[in-house]
Amino acid sequence: MSLLVVGSIAFDCIETPNGSVDDVLGGSAPAFCFAASFFTPPRLVGVVGDDFPDVYRGLFERLRIDTAGLVTQPGKTFRWKGRYHQDMNTRDTLEVHLNVFGTFDPVLPPAFRDSTHVFLANGSPVLQGRVLDQVREPRLVLADTMDLWINTQREALLKLLPRLDGLFVNDSEAQLLTGETNLVRAGRGVRRLGPKFVILKKGEHGAMLFSADGVFVVPAYPTPDVTDPTGAGDSFAGAMMGYLDSDGSPPPGRLRRGMAYGTVVASLTVEDFGLDRLKRTDRAEIDARLESYRKMMAF
Amino acid sequence: MSLLVVGSIAFDCIETPNGSVDDVLGGSAPAFCFAASFFTPPRLVGVVGDDFPDVYRGLFERLRIDTAGLVTQPGKTFRWKGRYHQDMNTRDTLEVHLNVFGTFDPVLPPAFRDSTHVFLANGSPVLQGRVLDQVREPRLVLADTMDLWINTQREALLKLLPRLDGLFVNDSEAQLLTGETNLVRAGRGVRRLGPKFVILKKGEHGAMLFSADGVFVVPAYPTPDVTDPTGAGDSFAGAMMGYLDSDGSPPPGRLRRGMAYGTVVASLTVEDFGLDRLKRTDRAEIDARLESYRKMMAF
Repeated sequence: MSLLVVGSIAFDCIETPNGSVDDVLGGSAPAFCFAASFFTPPRLVGVVGDDFPDVYRGLFERLRIDTAGLVTQPGKTFRWKGRYHQDMNTRDTLEVHLNVFGTFDPVLPPAFRDSTHVFLANGSPVLQGRVLDQVREPRLVLADTMDLWINTQREALLKLLPRLDGLFVNDSEAQLLTGETNLVRAGRGVRRLGPKFVILKKGEHGAMLFSADGVFVVPAYPTPDVTDPTGAGDSFAGAMMGYLDSDGSPPPGRLRRGMAYGTVVASLTVEDFGLDRLKRTDRAEIDARLESYRKMMAF
Repeated sequence: MSLLVVGSIAFDCIETPNGSVDDVLGGSAPAFCFAASFFTPPRLVGVVGDDFPDVYRGLFERLRIDTAGLVTQPGKTFRWKGRYHQDMNTRDTLEVHLNVFGTFDPVLPPAFRDSTHVFLANGSPVLQGRVLDQVREPRLVLADTMDLWINTQREALLKLLPRLDGLFVNDSEAQLLTGETNLVRAGRGVRRLGPKFVILKKGEHGAMLFSADGVFVVPAYPTPDVTDPTGAGDSFAGAMMGYLDSDGSPPPGRLRRGMAYGTVVASLTVEDFGLDRLKRTDRAEIDARLESYRKMMAF
């Protein structure tokens, strides 16, 4: 099996009520890859500027991330600056400088075209579709999206959805897509738009899975140490798909167990700024937290 | 075993985006008793005016609710009018007429003083304490509260908390009591104020239990048919305590299983106005939903 992600690579400036950091490694692709790397070596497609430091390239290598699709272009790497509110559930974007990411048209290296598992990180649905065109026989395709694309490229998004196995949306995106306020109805409504299953993310309240098997509820792992929620969603997706790429147990248990791994890894991600917490965890800690998570729900 | 509840009995006028009802049976005590009645015959202490109809007294009797503590006073029964917002998670109180409930000083009938399980429904912590004084040897005492008492009778509440086994609070009340925004920290903080355990309610996002055994997460049962959330919290408490009063299996599984029953019965409550949905369910449907709820979380 082989897991491909196409997404952004960024330098993040993050302000929270408890502190702030400047120019840390961010973007959807690194968060996804770091989380996936505990389960399988992911293939990365993305673009950086010539300001991207070797130390991060070395980090990618240590994590066994295949960077054959990492393009370096003249200019600056994507930069994002955001500020979290007191409750850590909402944030304001203060600055966005797309830089080299603004004109990126992802081309898969020939060696990546046989990828079996594909994650189309948040991006224009037109580009997401164009990436998917380049994968020969994908077995499991998941995509993320955001309110921007629902509002500005709705038609392209509606064309993409039937090509997906799974779509990640958060609660407000599901409501925006369907006009339903009840989350069960909203999740089911998104699924009727085409994807085989829908993962509805509720931040600190967990997630829900809507599939042919019905609804599966996934509470968040209750960590007291929420330092920085940036990257939680992409690391959820990375751990989930990394697990699915690595494991051969039969569905539907696989999808659910993948989501449990996603939950646990996302709960680690938020415990420090950027990807720092993921840098100092390992599969043993993840598995231990998974067991404690399972016990937390048993009755 | 014997389960006592002291709380309000009201006529509710409820407006929701999907319809409204006038003068339906409401208040914390009926919601608690209806839910508890599937597990054990509860003992009710409350007050109504001379406008309280016989049809409700007959309903109490059919549900095996012991009404030895139901006082009828000259005047009108408590009335409440509220309007839910589009998302059903928030509501405005439009009218409150305490009527006979405004001066109610609950006196337990002698036969109720040996109650083993006691629920002090939302009310002044001074009165809640005075009720507790009248119970001879309670084994399990749970109480509910609200922002009003935290803001206006904080000292009395802080005196009551160490006398409780468990306290129900919602997320904003826990934050108000402790000053913590993170819900894990807030729940732990409330527990440090005295109760042996804390049940932190998050509405459609479920609940959390903080006890000596750590944290237990309880997602809501995802129903697509949210008609009226009124009474969800009290029916959660009623089913939970009804189960605990009726069952002899050992802790901590008991508390968790009680919360699972609370979750499932609360999800039924919200599927129709007032207590109408509880009037047409039975233990078999509740147990079937409990099993489907368990499967929903398995991975």
